[in-house]
Amino acid sequence: MRRQNLGAVLRYVHVHGPTSRAELTSRLGLNRSTIRALAADLATAGLVTEEAPTTARRAGRPSLVVSPRSELVYANALSIEPSRLRAARVGLGGRILEIREAPRPRGMSPADAVTELAALVRDMDTGGDDTLCAGGAVAVADTTRDDDGTLHVGGADDTLAAALDAELTTGAAGRRGFVAGDMADIAALAEHTRGVAAGIDDLVYLHGDTGVSAGIVTGGRLVTGHGGASGKVGHMVVNPDGLRCGCGSRGCWETEVGTQALLRRAGAPPGTHPVAVLRAAAMGDAAARDALRGVADWLGFGVANLVNVFNPDIVVFGGTLREVYAGGAQTVRRRLDSMALPASREHLHLRAGALGADAALVGAAELAFGALLSDPLNGAAGQ
Amino acid sequence: MRRQNLGAVLRYVHVHGPTSRAELTSRLGLNRSTIRALAADLATAGLVTEEAPTTARRAGRPSLVVSPRSELVYANALSIEPSRLRAARVGLGGRILEIREAPRPRGMSPADAVTELAALVRDMDTGGDDTLCAGGAVAVADTTRDDDGTLHVGGADDTLAAALDAELTTGAAGRRGFVAGDMADIAALAEHTRGVAAGIDDLVYLHGDTGVSAGIVTGGRLVTGHGGASGKVGHMVVNPDGLRCGCGSRGCWETEVGTQALLRRAGAPPGTHPVAVLRAAAMGDAAARDALRGVADWLGFGVANLVNVFNPDIVVFGGTLREVYAGGAQTVRRRLDSMALPASREHLHLRAGALGADAALVGAAELAFGALLSDPLNGAAGQ
Repeated sequence: MRRQNLGAVLRYVHVHGPTSRAELTSRLGLNRSTIRALAADLATAGLVTEEAPTTARRAGRPSLVVSPRSELVYANALSIEPSRLRAARVGLGGRILEIREAPRPRGMSPADAVTELAALVRDMDTGGDDTLCAGGAVAVADTTRDDDGTLHVGGADDTLAAALDAELTTGAAGRRGFVAGDMADIAALAEHTRGVAAGIDDLVYLHGDTGVSAGIVTGGRLVTGHGGASGKVGHMVVNPDGLRCGCGSRGCWETEVGTQALLRRAGAPPGTHPVAVLRAAAMGDAAARDALRGVADWLGFGVANLVNVFNPDIVVFGGTLREVYAGGAQTVRRRLDSMALPASREHLHLRAGALGADAALVGAAELAFGALLSDPLNGAAGQ
Repeated sequence: MRRQNLGAVLRYVHVHGPTSRAELTSRLGLNRSTIRALAADLATAGLVTEEAPTTARRAGRPSLVVSPRSELVYANALSIEPSRLRAARVGLGGRILEIREAPRPRGMSPADAVTELAALVRDMDTGGDDTLCAGGAVAVADTTRDDDGTLHVGGADDTLAAALDAELTTGAAGRRGFVAGDMADIAALAEHTRGVAAGIDDLVYLHGDTGVSAGIVTGGRLVTGHGGASGKVGHMVVNPDGLRCGCGSRGCWETEVGTQALLRRAGAPPGTHPVAVLRAAAMGDAAARDALRGVADWLGFGVANLVNVFNPDIVVFGGTLREVYAGGAQTVRRRLDSMALPASREHLHLRAGALGADAALVGAAELAFGALLSDPLNGAAGQ
C-alpha cells in the first residue's frame, strides 16, 4: 500500500513535472500528512526535491513543490533503427539529458548491435557518484533487412536484453536490467504518456520506416498479443493483386505505404532518402506529389481497416508516416470518410506524433523507469 | 476486501461448478477459516449450497462441497438475431434452465423487438418466491437489414437496455437492470469463460451471419474501443476490386465471407438457408463445395490479417462461420500458412466454438451475472 502510494507520487511528478504538495493531495486523493511523509521518503532516497515555490501566489505558508531529480536519476534509452543506433540518458521527468548516435550498417542484426550500443552508453557522462541509473531499455525496429535484401519481421526479444545486461552490468548502467521492446510499442507508450495521446486510453500509433508496425493501446493497456508479436499491421494484406512482400505474402500494407513504396512511386533511384521525395512534393514537384498522394491514399485505406477493428479515439502517425500524413492529410481523411464506419469515424482524431524521432528514446526511458516507478525505494534508498 | 473475496468464491463455483472448500482454499490462496466464513455468508444469502460430498475419497472429515444454486439464482439472457429473437433463463453456473424463441421479421429493429422479448421473458416460469433474478442482458447482432435491403451496422446501445428495463422493471426480472452488448463480444465472453477458449487471455472470436464481427480479448480483457464500436472486422476491406458492401464501401470482408457470399457463389436462389449449401457441400455437391472453398479461402485471408495484428493464442469460429470452418478448415489453414507471419502462425490454434448457437445466451448471462459476481451480497441477502 505504501509502496503503491510512493509510486503514485513519483509517477505523478515524473509525468506532470514539478507539483505542489497541495496539488498532489487533491490529484491523488490522499491526505496532506500522507503526501508530506511520502514526499519526504522520496526526497531522502534522492528521487525528488522539495522546495518553496519561486513565486508565492497568495498569503499563508506556501505548499512545497515536489520535483523529479531529472539531472541525477536517469535511464539508459537505446534504439536500433533501420539505419542508425542511438543511446540517450533520459532523466526522471522524461527530459533527454544526453544523446549519442552511430550508423547501423545494412545487415547488422539487433544482436550484432549490442557492442556498439554498449560503447555509446559508456561514452556518455553519468555525472558522478550521486547519480542513480534506474535501468535501461531498447526499442527495436520491427523489420530488418539483410545485405541481400531479405526481410526479417520480428523485433525485440529477451536475448537482446540479456546481451545488453552482460555488456553493461558493471558500472552505473547495471543497477537494473535492460528490457527490450518493439519500436512501435515503445513509441506508442511515449505518445501515450507525454505526447499527443497523453491521457487517451484507446489509440493506434503507427510507426513507418522500411516496414510499418503499430503500437496499440486499448482500455489504457498496450496490446502485446499471445507471444509479443502483435501490431504487425504492415503485413495486413490490403491489395491481393499487389506486389510481393519481403515476408513472402503479396500486397501487404507496407508494400503500399513503406518507404520503398514512396520511392518506387516517385521513380526515385534506389538509395534515395524518403525525406527527399517528401521535400520535393512540398516544393511542388509533380511526380513527388503524385507519389505522396498515392501513398497517403493507401495509408488512409489501412487506417480505415484498423479504425473499424479497434474504434480508437486517436490514430498517431510516427516515423516516416508522420511526414506522409503531414503532406497528405486530406487524402488520408478522404479515404477514411469513404471506408471507416460512421460510428468509428465521427469521433476519431488523426494526429502527427508530438515527439518525432525522439519517441523511441522517450518511450524506452518510460519502459526503463517502470520498475522504479512501481517500487521507488527498492534499490534506490542510500545509493 | 471481503466483498472481493466473496466475489472470488462465487465466481469460482459459477465457472468451475461444485468445488470442495479444501480446493477453494488452495485455488484462491485464502486460508481455511476465511473460505469457511465466505461460503457460509454466500449460503445464507441463498447463492450457494454446502453439502457433504456424495463419495468420501479418504478417511477423515470430508471437506464440504460448495455449489452454485443454479435452479434458484438466474439471469435473463436475450438475443436479437438476424431472423429470430430468443430469451433464456440461465442459472448461476451457466446452465440454460428454460428457453423461448420467436421469429424476427425482416426490418424489425432492435428497439422494435423489445415488446416481443419482454413477452418471451414473462412467458418463462420463474419458479416461485424463493428465486433470485441477478439481472438481464441482451446480445444484439451487429448488422440489421431493412425491408428494402439497406444494411445498418451498429448493434447494441444503452437505449435498448433502458427500454427492456422499462418493460420488465416490475416482477422478478427487474431486480437489476439490463445491459446490452454486441453479439460477437458476448459470444466471445461465453467462449472465454466456459467454452473452447476458457482460461485463454488472447483470443479472436468471429461471429458470422449476414455480417461478420469479432469479439476480441487481449490480455484477458475485452476490447471495446473508444465508443464501444470495435470489432467490426466484417468491414475491413480485403478486396478493393470486390463487391459494393451495404455499408457503402467496396470489398469488405463480409462481402466475401458473409452468408450472402456463400449463397452467391453456390448460385443458390435468394432466401436459401446457408445451411442448405453447407449440407450440399458435405454431400459432395460440386457447386456447393466450390462455394464453400471460395468462402473458406477468404475466411483464411481475413483471419491472417487479424492474426498479424493481434497475435492471438486462439481464433474461434462462431455463427455461420463455425460451419464454414468445419467444412473448409484445410483451405483456411492453407491461406493462413501463406499469409500469417511465422511468429504468430506457429502457436496459433483454430477452433470451432464449443457453445454453438447458445454462445449468445450463455454470454449474455455472464454479462448479466457480472454485478452479482462482483458484489454478491448487495441486493442478494434476504431476498
